[in-house]
Formats: sequence, C-alpha cells, structure tokens
Amino acid sequence: MNEQARSSSSRRVAVIGLGSMGHGMAVSLKRAGHEVVGFDVRAEAVERFVADGGLGAATPGEAARGAATVVSVVLNAEQTEAVLFGADGCAATMEEGAVFISSATMAPSIARAMAERLEATGRHYLDAPISGGAQRAMSGELTVLVSGSDQAMAAAGPVVDAMAATVFPLGPAVGTAASLKVVNQLLAGVHIAAACEAMAFAAAHDLDPSKVFEVITRSAGNSWMFENRVPHILENDYSPRSAVDIFVKDLGIVLDIARAEKIPVPLAGTALQSFVMTSAAGMGGDDDSSVFRLYQRIRGAIDGMPGDEAS
Amino acid sequence: MNEQARSSSSRRVAVIGLGSMGHGMAVSLKRAGHEVVGFDVRAEAVERFVADGGLGAATPGEAARGAATVVSVVLNAEQTEAVLFGADGCAATMEEGAVFISSATMAPSIARAMAERLEATGRHYLDAPISGGAQRAMSGELTVLVSGSDQAMAAAGPVVDAMAATVFPLGPAVGTAASLKVVNQLLAGVHIAAACEAMAFAAAHDLDPSKVFEVITRSAGNSWMFENRVPHILENDYSPRSAVDIFVKDLGIVLDIARAEKIPVPLAGTALQSFVMTSAAGMGGDDDSSVFRLYQRIRGAIDGMPGDEAS
Repeated sequence: MNEQARSSSSRRVAVIGLGSMGHGMAVSLKRAGHEVVGFDVRAEAVERFVADGGLGAATPGEAARGAATVVSVVLNAEQTEAVLFGADGCAATMEEGAVFISSATMAPSIARAMAERLEATGRHYLDAPISGGAQRAMSGELTVLVSGSDQAMAAAGPVVDAMAATVFPLGPAVGTAASLKVVNQLLAGVHIAAACEAMAFAAAHDLDPSKVFEVITRSAGNSWMFENRVPHILENDYSPRSAVDIFVKDLGIVLDIARAEKIPVPLAGTALQSFVMTSAAGMGGDDDSSVFRLYQRIRGAIDGMPGDEAS
Repeated sequence: MNEQARSSSSRRVAVIGLGSMGHGMAVSLKRAGHEVVGFDVRAEAVERFVADGGLGAATPGEAARGAATVVSVVLNAEQTEAVLFGADGCAATMEEGAVFISSATMAPSIARAMAERLEATGRHYLDAPISGGAQRAMSGELTVLVSGSDQAMAAAGPVVDAMAATVFPLGPAVGTAASLKVVNQLLAGVHIAAACEAMAFAAAHDLDPSKVFEVITRSAGNSWMFENRVPHILENDYSPRSAVDIFVKDLGIVLDIARAEKIPVPLAGTALQSFVMTSAAGMGGDDDSSVFRLYQRIRGAIDGMPGDEAS
C-alpha cells in the first residue's frame, strides 16, 4: 500500500448494487473509515443503507461522482456494462485516475473489453470477482481474486483490503481473475450437484444420511461443497444461503464461454441441467442443495426428508 | 476386541488376491503377528509373497483351509463369487465359524446374496470395502467400512484392525458398507473428472496451472480429489497411482446399480464417459488424472504439458 493508495483510501467510495453482498461490502467499507455512497435499482435497498448511516445516490453516475473508487456488485456482465456505460452510468462521471472494481462473475473476454473501453478514458479497471457469501461480506472477510494494471491494483488496494480476508493477486491482465473465478464456479457447481446426486443415491439405498456425511467427509469422496451443503439436507432446511438460480447463472456463464471457445465441459453441462431441472420444478429461489429434493421428488420419496423413505 | 477375537487373532489368515492392495494387506497382517497364507491367480505374485516370508497356496480353497479368517482382495463381485463358490473356492474348505472378509467394491445386492449363501453353511461374511491405496495397504493404514453380523464383526475385528487406520462400523446388515463405498466412488469419480475438466478449461484460458491449484485448494471449488490428483497434472506424471480403468470399473458399478434400481445419476454417467473416452484413447492403464490429457489432446494442446499451450 503506497502513499498514493493511502491518500485515495481516505476518499469517497461508491458501491453500485446493494443486495446481500453489496450491502455487506458497503458496511465493511464504512467500518474501515471510508465515506461510502450507495446505489441500487431498488430504492428500498438505498434507504436501508442510508438508515445504516451511509450516503445514497439516485443513479450509478451520481454515486460515482467525486469517488476515487467505484465497487460494482451486480449480477452479471450485462448489468456491469449498464452500470459503467449505460444512461447515467459511472464512466461518464468517474474522476480521471479513479478505479472501477468489478466483482460480478463474467466471461474474461467481456471483462477485457470493458476494461479497454474504460481505460481509454483515463480511468482504471480492476477485475475482482468475489466469493464468501453475505455473512463474510458483512464482516469484511471475503475472498477476492484480483487482476489488473499496477495502477488499478495500487488505487484499489485499501478498498479491496477493507472487504477481504484473502486477496489473490493474479497479475496485470484483466480477465485472469475472471477466468479463475469461472474455473472455481465450474467446480463448485459440479460438486454441489454431485453431493445432491450422491445423497439421493444414498437415500435410495436407505443409508443413514448423517452416517454418510460422517464417512464421506473423512474419505476421498469429500469436497468443500459436500461438507458445506449436505448439512442443509440433513437439517431439511432449504432457505437460500445461495440459491439454485445462482448456479443456473454461473454454470450458464461456464457453458457460454465453453461453447464459444470450443472447450469441452461435459460435467459442467450436466450439472447445469441439474440446476435447471431444480429451478423448473419451482425451487429456483431455494437453497442450491435443493437438487437433492429434485431427485427425491422424481423418485417419489418424501420431499426433503432424508431418511423418511428408509424404513 | 473380546477374548474370543483375541484367540482367533493368533490363528491363520488367508489373503486371496496379492495385487498391490492384497500384497500390502498380507504384509501388514504378517507384521501384526498373524500367520498368513496367500493366493493369487498369478503364480509370481504368490512367489513374491513367499519370498517375503509368507506362506503360499495353489488355490483359494487350499489357502482357506484351517484359516480362521479369509480376506478377499480381488477386483469385483464376479471374482469374489469365484473365490468363494467357484471350483477350488473357499466356501468348501473354510472352517465352521470362520469369517470371510470381502473388500471388493460391488453392488450391495450381490454382497447380500453371497453373504446369505455363505452364512447358510455356518460361516460368517463381513462386508468390508477398503480405500487408501497401495502405500497405506502396506503400512496397515487403510480405511475400511464394515457391516455384518455381530459374530462376523467380532471374529474379523483383530484382522481388520491390523490392516486399517480407520474403521467405520456401519451396523449389522451386509450391503450397508457396500452401498456407502459405492456412494464414495460416485463422488470420487465425478470429482476426478471435474478436476481434469476444470484444469483443461484453465489451460485453454492460459491460466498458470500452479496458481489455479493454489487458489482452488483454498476456495469453495476444492475437493479431496482435486487436491490429490492435480499435482500429477502439474508434475506431468501419469504413472498410475490409481488407473483410469479403476474408475471405468467403479463408475460402471454405480451406473449398473442406478439403472437396475431406477436411481438418476446424470453426473456419474457423464464422468464414466470421460473415463471411458480416456481409456479408449489408450490411457486406461495410466493415472486417472489422464482425463486432463484427453481434453488437452482433443483441443490439440501439447500432450500432458500444462502451460505449454500458453504463450
């Protein structure tokens, strides 16, 4: 963190998108001493942040005016592009030398194109996908992958540090962080769907689900996602920690890239269909472990009650 | 370990199948003080064990004669059935009250049928699939899932303990351990194929493979298999620690069961095809991380040289 970065750290930060992630990140930035102005398309999200002591803005462009750093926490590439270059977008109002931190999961080619367009105007672009969930956003303990120019890295440093427990710097090329995030989402999505498929297989064999969890988490079949999601199945609690439709989106990004670039990803394609079927069955807004319930329903087992079908 | 178990622990153990797993298990049993007699269809495997100080037998039946415990370490259900009930099989020569420990991965319905047939003659059957690999077989540190009658458990206890670092007792029903092993293999197979698919995607995006490994192993996309197998890719070393054809076999068992019992397992089916394609491309005997090389070859990238295609 050099002197220049330190000086910009005391200046204004705009946060665009105040959903469960963005709100937590804005709160973490305020806690770290930044002056934070928030924008969201939903007026009530802005009001909530203002009630928590933040500043509100009516458009992305208004939020970005006078900010040294803009943090974009929207759903996808399309929304990010609108935030930057749409009517009332940030690019038109950002100061020269200010940095745009883009956190949505997206294709690296799109990240590169947006970075080029923004940087041609004298602003910086940091490719900075996040992970960790709403709770860690609120506590400033996200994991952030970052790639971008030295200037973007230096300018964004204190802001990223205020939001993250773990930062992986991945070099000067915008797109590297986006690619690696996509690789992570490919694995995460396959592992969630696999955990649900395996637990449904186990249920069909009348295995005790908590015993399966105990054995698998200590065996070669374990994954971070198995360990994290299967407890939702054991507790029969499908309130969304992360929703099915998030993986319809993220595996959709994987498949779009893979098709365009001719990269075979058969497992990601199959996992995507598992999430699409679960969403089609009416569970798109439920916890992503609902893929288990899909298989239970297909088999006519009691909905979401592992063990009930064991006699 | 009760007194009865202790007394049988000093008696003879037969090990049927002296491949990389069986040889190690036989050596571990000898080290623990058992008198061990080995059989294998390959005479040279028996000679090797005899050279190491073990006893050799010419048939499974001969090995089992006078043994309190028979440990079967063969490839699959078909071989296990031949070992037990084939010409010169064990069932005909095993003592009354002796226990047959079956370690091959197989459908639980087949394990149950063999157990019923053996137990009708006054011998015991322990459903005891193993995992851990050749090195841990040799050091007596396998993981063993066990299910079976109290008598089978008690009689087999000291022998299982001599081979295992971790034993999961799963109750009195033969088939429970077999089912749980199949669930583990479903996940393990999907996770290996997913790790390879993700690393090939990363290579197509010119990501630094060692950086991908560093980030993913600390992220939500991690799995036990990713952490264990991706180093083989990084080191470009496809000498078989566990071969592609093992998962052609084990995911084949998953798919056979799933089809017979009408359990949907789309990811396991897709993963099986990844291993079948890798075997079809001539890599069936190579390390199972060779699924990565399959995708590299398909894409025309340099064989097994991650990063070479990055410029």
